[in-house]
Amino acid sequence: MQHHAITMLGTGLIGDFYTMTLHGQRGADRVRVVYSRSEGRGRAFSARWGIPESTTDMESAIRHPETDVVVVALPNYLHETAVAAVAAAGKAVLCTKPLGRTADEAWRMLQTVERAGVFAGYLEDLCYTPKTLKAIRSVEEGALGDVTWVRSREAHPGPHSAWFWDGRLTGGGAIIDLGCHCIEIIRNFVGKGNRPVSVMCTTDTLVHPIDDEDNAIALIRFESGAIGQFEVSWTFRGGMDLRDEVAGTRGTVWLNHFLRTGFEMFTAAGGGGYVAEKAETASGWLFPVGDEVAELGYVDMFTDMLDSLDAGRSPRETFYDGYVVNAVMDAAYRSARSGSWEPVELAEWRGGTTPRITATGETYEGSTVIKRELLPDGRVKMILKDAVTGDYVDRVIAGG
Amino acid sequence: MQHHAITMLGTGLIGDFYTMTLHGQRGADRVRVVYSRSEGRGRAFSARWGIPESTTDMESAIRHPETDVVVVALPNYLHETAVAAVAAAGKAVLCTKPLGRTADEAWRMLQTVERAGVFAGYLEDLCYTPKTLKAIRSVEEGALGDVTWVRSREAHPGPHSAWFWDGRLTGGGAIIDLGCHCIEIIRNFVGKGNRPVSVMCTTDTLVHPIDDEDNAIALIRFESGAIGQFEVSWTFRGGMDLRDEVAGTRGTVWLNHFLRTGFEMFTAAGGGGYVAEKAETASGWLFPVGDEVAELGYVDMFTDMLDSLDAGRSPRETFYDGYVVNAVMDAAYRSARSGSWEPVELAEWRGGTTPRITATGETYEGSTVIKRELLPDGRVKMILKDAVTGDYVDRVIAGG
Amino acid sequence: MQHHAITMLGTGLIGDFYTMTLHGQRGADRVRVVYSRSEGRGRAFSARWGIPESTTDMESAIRHPETDVVVVALPNYLHETAVAAVAAAGKAVLCTKPLGRTADEAWRMLQTVERAGVFAGYLEDLCYTPKTLKAIRSVEEGALGDVTWVRSREAHPGPHSAWFWDGRLTGGGAIIDLGCHCIEIIRNFVGKGNRPVSVMCTTDTLVHPIDDEDNAIALIRFESGAIGQFEVSWTFRGGMDLRDEVAGTRGTVWLNHFLRTGFEMFTAAGGGGYVAEKAETASGWLFPVGDEVAELGYVDMFTDMLDSLDAGRSPRETFYDGYVVNAVMDAAYRSARSGSWEPVELAEWRGGTTPRITATGETYEGSTVIKRELLPDGRVKMILKDAVTGDYVDRVIAGG
Amino acid sequence: MQHHAITMLGTGLIGDFYTMTLHGQRGADRVRVVYSRSEGRGRAFSARWGIPESTTDMESAIRHPETDVVVVALPNYLHETAVAAVAAAGKAVLCTKPLGRTADEAWRMLQTVERAGVFAGYLEDLCYTPKTLKAIRSVEEGALGDVTWVRSREAHPGPHSAWFWDGRLTGGGAIIDLGCHCIEIIRNFVGKGNRPVSVMCTTDTLVHPIDDEDNAIALIRFESGAIGQFEVSWTFRGGMDLRDEVAGTRGTVWLNHFLRTGFEMFTAAGGGGYVAEKAETASGWLFPVGDEVAELGYVDMFTDMLDSLDAGRSPRETFYDGYVVNAVMDAAYRSARSGSWEPVELAEWRGGTTPRITATGETYEGSTVIKRELLPDGRVKMILKDAVTGDYVDRVIAGG
Repeated sequence: MQHHAITMLGTGLIGDFYTMTLHGQRGADRVRVVYSRSEGRGRAFSARWGIPESTTDMESAIRHPETDVVVVALPNYLHETAVAAVAAAGKAVLCTKPLGRTADEAWRMLQTVERAGVFAGYLEDLCYTPKTLKAIRSVEEGALGDVTWVRSREAHPGPHSAWFWDGRLTGGGAIIDLGCHCIEIIRNFVGKGNRPVSVMCTTDTLVHPIDDEDNAIALIRFESGAIGQFEVSWTFRGGMDLRDEVAGTRGTVWLNHFLRTGFEMFTAAGGGGYVAEKAETASGWLFPVGDEVAELGYVDMFTDMLDSLDAGRSPRETFYDGYVVNAVMDAAYRSARSGSWEPVELAEWRGGTTPRITATGETYEGSTVIKRELLPDGRVKMILKDAVTGDYVDRVIAGG
Repeated sequence: MQHHAITMLGTGLIGDFYTMTLHGQRGADRVRVVYSRSEGRGRAFSARWGIPESTTDMESAIRHPETDVVVVALPNYLHETAVAAVAAAGKAVLCTKPLGRTADEAWRMLQTVERAGVFAGYLEDLCYTPKTLKAIRSVEEGALGDVTWVRSREAHPGPHSAWFWDGRLTGGGAIIDLGCHCIEIIRNFVGKGNRPVSVMCTTDTLVHPIDDEDNAIALIRFESGAIGQFEVSWTFRGGMDLRDEVAGTRGTVWLNHFLRTGFEMFTAAGGGGYVAEKAETASGWLFPVGDEVAELGYVDMFTDMLDSLDAGRSPRETFYDGYVVNAVMDAAYRSARSGSWEPVELAEWRGGTTPRITATGETYEGSTVIKRELLPDGRVKMILKDAVTGDYVDRVIAGG
Repeated sequence: MQHHAITMLGTGLIGDFYTMTLHGQRGADRVRVVYSRSEGRGRAFSARWGIPESTTDMESAIRHPETDVVVVALPNYLHETAVAAVAAAGKAVLCTKPLGRTADEAWRMLQTVERAGVFAGYLEDLCYTPKTLKAIRSVEEGALGDVTWVRSREAHPGPHSAWFWDGRLTGGGAIIDLGCHCIEIIRNFVGKGNRPVSVMCTTDTLVHPIDDEDNAIALIRFESGAIGQFEVSWTFRGGMDLRDEVAGTRGTVWLNHFLRTGFEMFTAAGGGGYVAEKAETASGWLFPVGDEVAELGYVDMFTDMLDSLDAGRSPRETFYDGYVVNAVMDAAYRSARSGSWEPVELAEWRGGTTPRITATGETYEGSTVIKRELLPDGRVKMILKDAVTGDYVDRVIAGG
Repeated sequence: MQHHAITMLGTGLIGDFYTMTLHGQRGADRVRVVYSRSEGRGRAFSARWGIPESTTDMESAIRHPETDVVVVALPNYLHETAVAAVAAAGKAVLCTKPLGRTADEAWRMLQTVERAGVFAGYLEDLCYTPKTLKAIRSVEEGALGDVTWVRSREAHPGPHSAWFWDGRLTGGGAIIDLGCHCIEIIRNFVGKGNRPVSVMCTTDTLVHPIDDEDNAIALIRFESGAIGQFEVSWTFRGGMDLRDEVAGTRGTVWLNHFLRTGFEMFTAAGGGGYVAEKAETASGWLFPVGDEVAELGYVDMFTDMLDSLDAGRSPRETFYDGYVVNAVMDAAYRSARSGSWEPVELAEWRGGTTPRITATGETYEGSTVIKRELLPDGRVKMILKDAVTGDYVDRVIAGG
């Protein structure tokens, strides 16, 4: 294992989470220099995390002679420029979500890093939560049969920094901010080789006086017939609602990442300090999260990124994944305008093909078996469909 | 309070639930006669529930001299005929869900009972669960502010009787069977005066070898801007998933009617008998429901129906409600075919108008306030939008 | 089914719950007259519930010519007098919990009703919650094997009326108020024929400036070896904590009656009205209960009482049960003083004998099998104990 | 931060968990040599975890020239010998739980490391789960007021290795195996300076054919008046029940570490591989844990241990803590035999004194206020106790 010296670009909330993770738990990797547009914020950040240097010159931060990895933790509209500069410097680049503001932007970033031949990772933390990783493994091992439906929901009362609310800088509203997580979670469960075919989406600006959507719901149809469903909101009340549900032909998975994780606290005293990201109250019933950077996937994400870099292999989440997510979001925005299903347009599909979900196909004495149920008395009841007439009948057979 | 003698039409699972409820808990109302197409099933049913008479003649059951209320618990394709016969007999009629197979059928039934001037109730039990009734009351009292979104989900491995699977007899698949519940639950939460404007729906037949949909998801846009979302499935694994989620500008409600109600049981012994409707296993971790007919709304439903009949007022759920539900389902099926939003077509709207969801509108020193957050040190941070440039800025003010 | 006209003695919170139940859901039984020490409260109560008469003369209320059942919903110190008066009047008597302030008092009440030959029911509502009834049935059917341990917990911030806090009137503190519920719940799960042998209890007055205990924990040893454990508190924060846990040799049951029943609400609006009994807040995350009188057992309790009266059989909860509960509480108070296990002293045991919990007894090649586990590769691992040396060894056998 | 080379003594389940943690997540510390009594198990273990050397000679493992830290992951009866050898070698020693089989043994181990002046840490993982650490912090910050009661429960179907079942090797049964966790969790919540005064305990051997207890419940009385309660069982069915509940004068905390952590899976397919430690089934409803070594505290435990070693400070959990735990367990076993409260005997108390839990003390017009409640109409109801007569009265005052 190599130890990495890292350039951190950006000093916002996400920069804090990233550095807390990199410097946490006996890890040997360290942030060596941080870049901020503001000298004061840069100095405060480096003091907070014990970072030797801060600078307001992005280029010199990227080209710092001692660092070999650059983390892009900047607002969306700066991703392309920053990634291009890192690629030119020939260093490994890890870029926060969403990759681009549009699929076009993401596609250019992908081509930039591929042409430069540098290691590139897409920092999609929510695909790395320990629960999600274990659930994906169970799905891959067949515990759910074929996946038919994935719901991924992320909802809270709205982001903390001004730039998030300006669609000119971000590329959109709640979809760009939250939907990118949901889409990639969905892809991990239906299988990354399962091509997203088309999207139906509705958006609205219900509560906040902004130009972009504060609520959106979308359906994504995959090649296998599976449906992905994302629900994002900047107007949810009650904290951070972060849940995934997966249905398959043989099983179900429910994940709750924030509000119901087995940690429940009532306090009439208040003043209990920080509860959890985007918690709305500090008294009454609260639902804290144990170790947020671990539970939200940051720990496993950086482990995968840096282990992959050491091993010379692709990380779980690549710039290509980021590009596909942007393409799905583009289709969602088009659908919200057209009111119809819109195709997901991909310059290149690298995922192969996925067969249709397996339907049941049992027959019994020439009829199609629709269902079989074990009765309390041990007999078996079947619902049969006559192949010729199409009529359905109940049929009880002894024993089974 | 009058005591009613009731004609029960039908001896299926729903007839059992209805009679168990009517005969339960010190109630004075009694089923007097039951009609079944099969003499054997009719006799078994009347023996099971202590009903004096059974018959295979529907007309004589309806016109039984001692009954004043007729409950229609028959397969969908028989509703119109049965309701017409009861109306002709001048008796009160209570019809199970869905009212019709189509909005046209439901509209004719509505007109039939209104012309005959008989009391008519729509037996939509899931709008009467004690949790739902109390949650609706909280919403009506303003606990959630304006409702922005309602998700109603009903999913299980598929119905128990053959006729449910035959769309010719029922009018469709999982939407007709389960979606009718969800739609009316959604209407109760967004307000029954809130007109359903259009529907976007996707359906698929993923697992079962049938002609109709075994999975469907739909979005319903209401006049206020609220979105209703229903998810229905005949392929869910793990039991009966019956959940509602309501989001508003000031609050949230989550209801779980079946799988997580504070009753959890692990058994390695099995043989624990009936667990709950559509439970898949009888060992391992099980999630039984206490008193199913109460928890699923049957008790409060019949109380409302018969109390309303006694009082000469409309029940909470009327044939007009059933008609609106059918109209929404019709739009859902059209949308599934067209791939676009489809208008909800109503011959008559009785609900008035509902204003748009209230957006926030605070200003601060000439700028629009997007968000205000209390910082740990007592200061207030505001995110402001400049009215002219459209730029967003963070601004911290002392005290607040 | 007969319809009963009822005398209600008492107009406190419990009188309200009882009358709400008796007059609810199409029931034909009605309270005919109510007694209160205060004319004003009596009048308000009868107006609230549509009761024809109220009186401040207990004797005349009991002997009202039209009533056949008397419900004793009075403070504990009045139970014995009231029950004696009802017995003398030859009417059925239903007495709220606890039966007496001491086992002596309860024993006299039991003898009084038995000598008078009147129907007598012990109104122990929490043994009648739909969840509890179904769980008891599962236990009786063997789903848990032999019951080894029952935990029953009832905790809230303290009662609403002054008299509850005065041990001279009630017989004690939190044990008398809440422990009586827990003890009878425990008896229902371990089996009513399973004799409570001895009790170990600790009490303390931690928060409230009162003379009696505001917190207590007790262990009850039963003849079978099962342990009952009750935890009662008048200082709990967060609402009403009402949970039962049952462990058996083959399974587990967990019941949550109040705080986590599948109904979750967040409100920033407040003003949402009554949430649930003893809820502490009206905003933030709230956990309401759907239909409280049903969920807390009142409905099934009165159904059982009046059905049993009609049928001439004993109800599930009798005065003898109330007496046993008092005897256990007496032993608890003695143990809290002595610091040792104290015997449960019963003038008469009507429950027969219960065998010791069944221990496992498998042998393998002459050794005792402690445990067998299925390994992932299909082999079976056994932990064996050598009968002679008493040594324990791991042993893996092929297949199994 | 220094990087440590570690000697691991023992190759059982706990050795696997420890090494998985030390080698996990970009950590720079590495196990350098492993000792096992069995050459085969040692070789398999070193191959599994990429450890350069294994040996069957404990002394040479301890004195390996490149290691500076020794982890004792051996059966209980070997702790004292191993710790003495490490102390003699002058290396840092980290010893798994329980420290000794008895307080005497633990006291000698404590003296050994203190005399040798080596760094010594007590590997009590469950005090380090991220939830527990955050909850302890909230308690320390006053969110719960004064702690009145802590329940810690650990229950499962029994341990996996033969030696655990032999009390001669371990010092007891379920108390020694599981109670040591509970006791130290309780001490962390009531405050480590809060002296455990006396213990009441009951034990039984209900199911397994062994000589030691397979079930135990104990109450621990602390100097402040707080009560700790532990429940341990080797006969629980349904998986691993690991829950803590903390009640305080102003709040409540509930932690669930295993069965209800927001990860729920149903599978009819089975074969989903490893679910979680001590899960009983591989199909039906399952409740996996995301990242077990993180959720169970191993990650934060080793971080604290090695960071403390680097910083020259005491870790959170010391050998003195382990000694106190053994002293409480000794008292529990004595109490189980005597049937009375038994004092906790400590050769030395290092924790200072803790004041009694703060009782409420408000007065109103000369009376003691027992309770105040806000009525729905805005008035305040007080329950008052007359200082002279001791009588309790309800009193409603305007406004409040």
